[in-house]
Amino acid sequence: MVRWKDLSTSEMTLLDHVFWSSRISREALASGSSFSKSRANAAVAGMLEQGVLEATGEQVATGGRRAETLRLSRNLGVLLGAALGATGLEVGVMTPDLELLAHHSEPADVRDGPARVLSRVRSLMREQLKQCGAKVRDVIAIGIGVPGPVDFGLGQLVNPPLMPAWDAYSIREDLKVDFSAPVYVDNDVNVMALGELWRMQRGLQNFLVIKVGTGIGCGIVCHGQVYRGANGSAGDVGHICVDPQGPRCHCGNLGCVEAMAAGPAIARAATEAAESGESPLLKQMLDERGALKLLDVAEASRTGDAAANAIVQRSGALVGQMLAAVVNFYNPSHIFIGGGIQKIGPLFLAAVRQSVYHRSLALSTRHLEIQYTPLGERAGLIGAGVLGMQESLRMREAVV
Amino acid sequence: MVRWKDLSTSEMTLLDHVFWSSRISREALASGSSFSKSRANAAVAGMLEQGVLEATGEQVATGGRRAETLRLSRNLGVLLGAALGATGLEVGVMTPDLELLAHHSEPADVRDGPARVLSRVRSLMREQLKQCGAKVRDVIAIGIGVPGPVDFGLGQLVNPPLMPAWDAYSIREDLKVDFSAPVYVDNDVNVMALGELWRMQRGLQNFLVIKVGTGIGCGIVCHGQVYRGANGSAGDVGHICVDPQGPRCHCGNLGCVEAMAAGPAIARAATEAAESGESPLLKQMLDERGALKLLDVAEASRTGDAAANAIVQRSGALVGQMLAAVVNFYNPSHIFIGGGIQKIGPLFLAAVRQSVYHRSLALSTRHLEIQYTPLGERAGLIGAGVLGMQESLRMREAVV
Repeated sequence: MVRWKDLSTSEMTLLDHVFWSSRISREALASGSSFSKSRANAAVAGMLEQGVLEATGEQVATGGRRAETLRLSRNLGVLLGAALGATGLEVGVMTPDLELLAHHSEPADVRDGPARVLSRVRSLMREQLKQCGAKVRDVIAIGIGVPGPVDFGLGQLVNPPLMPAWDAYSIREDLKVDFSAPVYVDNDVNVMALGELWRMQRGLQNFLVIKVGTGIGCGIVCHGQVYRGANGSAGDVGHICVDPQGPRCHCGNLGCVEAMAAGPAIARAATEAAESGESPLLKQMLDERGALKLLDVAEASRTGDAAANAIVQRSGALVGQMLAAVVNFYNPSHIFIGGGIQKIGPLFLAAVRQSVYHRSLALSTRHLEIQYTPLGERAGLIGAGVLGMQESLRMREAVV
Repeated sequence: MVRWKDLSTSEMTLLDHVFWSSRISREALASGSSFSKSRANAAVAGMLEQGVLEATGEQVATGGRRAETLRLSRNLGVLLGAALGATGLEVGVMTPDLELLAHHSEPADVRDGPARVLSRVRSLMREQLKQCGAKVRDVIAIGIGVPGPVDFGLGQLVNPPLMPAWDAYSIREDLKVDFSAPVYVDNDVNVMALGELWRMQRGLQNFLVIKVGTGIGCGIVCHGQVYRGANGSAGDVGHICVDPQGPRCHCGNLGCVEAMAAGPAIARAATEAAESGESPLLKQMLDERGALKLLDVAEASRTGDAAANAIVQRSGALVGQMLAAVVNFYNPSHIFIGGGIQKIGPLFLAAVRQSVYHRSLALSTRHLEIQYTPLGERAGLIGAGVLGMQESLRMREAVV
């Protein structure tokens, strides 16, 4: 197996470039690097020979003639990713260029505590590896996204409101029970933002990813890098106040957007609409299913239920009101919205946009695009893979 | 006169390091650079000989023995800086290491338009130069801070609400009437943030500078660099809503923090307190001075006037409410507050802190420091000098 530390610094720089380009022709790689063409070509030839890079067989047109594209060699091994949410988890195996080889998702409750949840994650990881014919020693790196503030250096959660039992628990040590590959942990929305940054080959430098599910969080990309803040809690937008007279949030304050517009608030409003008789459809769903969730409201909204639509619009307007403040402050080029809310479709997005465009300054919204995360449901898992690979490449650089 | 383009890339790198270190010993410079000690020492010796660097004569203790400190040579020339506010302007001449040689400030109204205001700026710049025995050809670079959103590449204001006549006016072309040095223009609060970044020798990587005067704006430092956003309007926090039922702002929306807590709102509230008889002191000031300004309220507050104090506390609480949202999103390590509001003293700061600590998440405020800008009244002018020097050094790098 190839080790990063056997490579020169210039080879690592080129490797990093190939990784962030997804696939790239030799010519584009040589001309995009800071090295001379001959030096770049020699390094590429060396890495092809060592099996670090490989030619894909695909051809891209470059200036009239056809050129082969390069990618990280599949001989390097595989990446493991895990995306933990408050109510579910997803585990996957990826190639070094983020092609998903196997993945599995299932409901889970993070409040069961780290030992139980991570034991299940490890077991799923072993299963998924086996399913694609890979072994534990083939794992290059493991990336994990978790729904709370993270001390990135330690790879631990810090005072996570949704999962207090995880506070300062060593996720790295836990994963060591089964794996020897390096483990990198970050907040779930930061990981989604990293995934989108990779998808766009770092083409956007300043954008936000908002996740609306059980909570509301924000991943911030600044100057082409994920920004974590002074204490790793940047992007904790769920507790921005949108109504000083609003209901009390679990954080203790009044009118936090999370308490008024996230999944549980949407489900609660839907239950009230069902019980009050305002929506016969929601009533029927409640009777059949025992409880209403965000996904049920999404379903009712898609069929045109007026009460469900009003709930969705109200949630979108509140999220938009919070985002208007964030847009005035941050002036991002794009806002990508992900999480369970994506299931609702265009109605939610329209309400968010209307609210942002109404409340933010014209200059900040002139070119602003607000849309659902292009990576969709896979944003967390792909992002976890990118995290593992990025940090694995970066760490090698630090060690040299 | 020395030209940047005669220097090698490694010399420029070391020069940049000396600039950002304010003053530094040879040993610290050599060990802090990415070059070998011998290479760094040779480059320093060369730059001392060429008169680009100079030894200050000051001694610093380094590991037992005394070492001379280096700084940018005063033979390089001088920097010109201008800090334009909505109601005043300041012009200064600085050494390459930001020592203020001469400066002058006076009231001005940016609504008089760019031609008139900039003609006065140029005239003051020429006077100030003469006063310190420098000539136009000695000017290395000119940095200018202006109170509105700036297209940094073009050096022009873009849709500035406080000064519409300046929209797309070429400040660079205007300055060319008298000066041939390069001119760099940025938003006034960005310039203050750059000044503080320089003062701390880039020791803080993620912090905010808030200016409260006629308007309210924010300079953002992210990953050790000033962040301007996708359209140059990042930090436009004055139009964040703090009360959906609040008064209408000049931007057209309701309850913007600027409309409720900046200088004019404070002056308006003080005038009401004077006219209603609530504050005999403010009444007396109003009668004597014809109108009340932020500085009058500051004066009344310092003497313990209850009505003035209530106005100051309300303003601080509203600014803090806006900042609470910003802190949840950005998790800065420090917030420095500058502008006319500094004159008010600790009462305003206490109200801001109380409001932020009450509304922001504990993790985000655990190590957060909120204080007035350490550079104080000079933050804008020093920042303008830093802008000129930084960009002058950076542009040379781009040209190579």
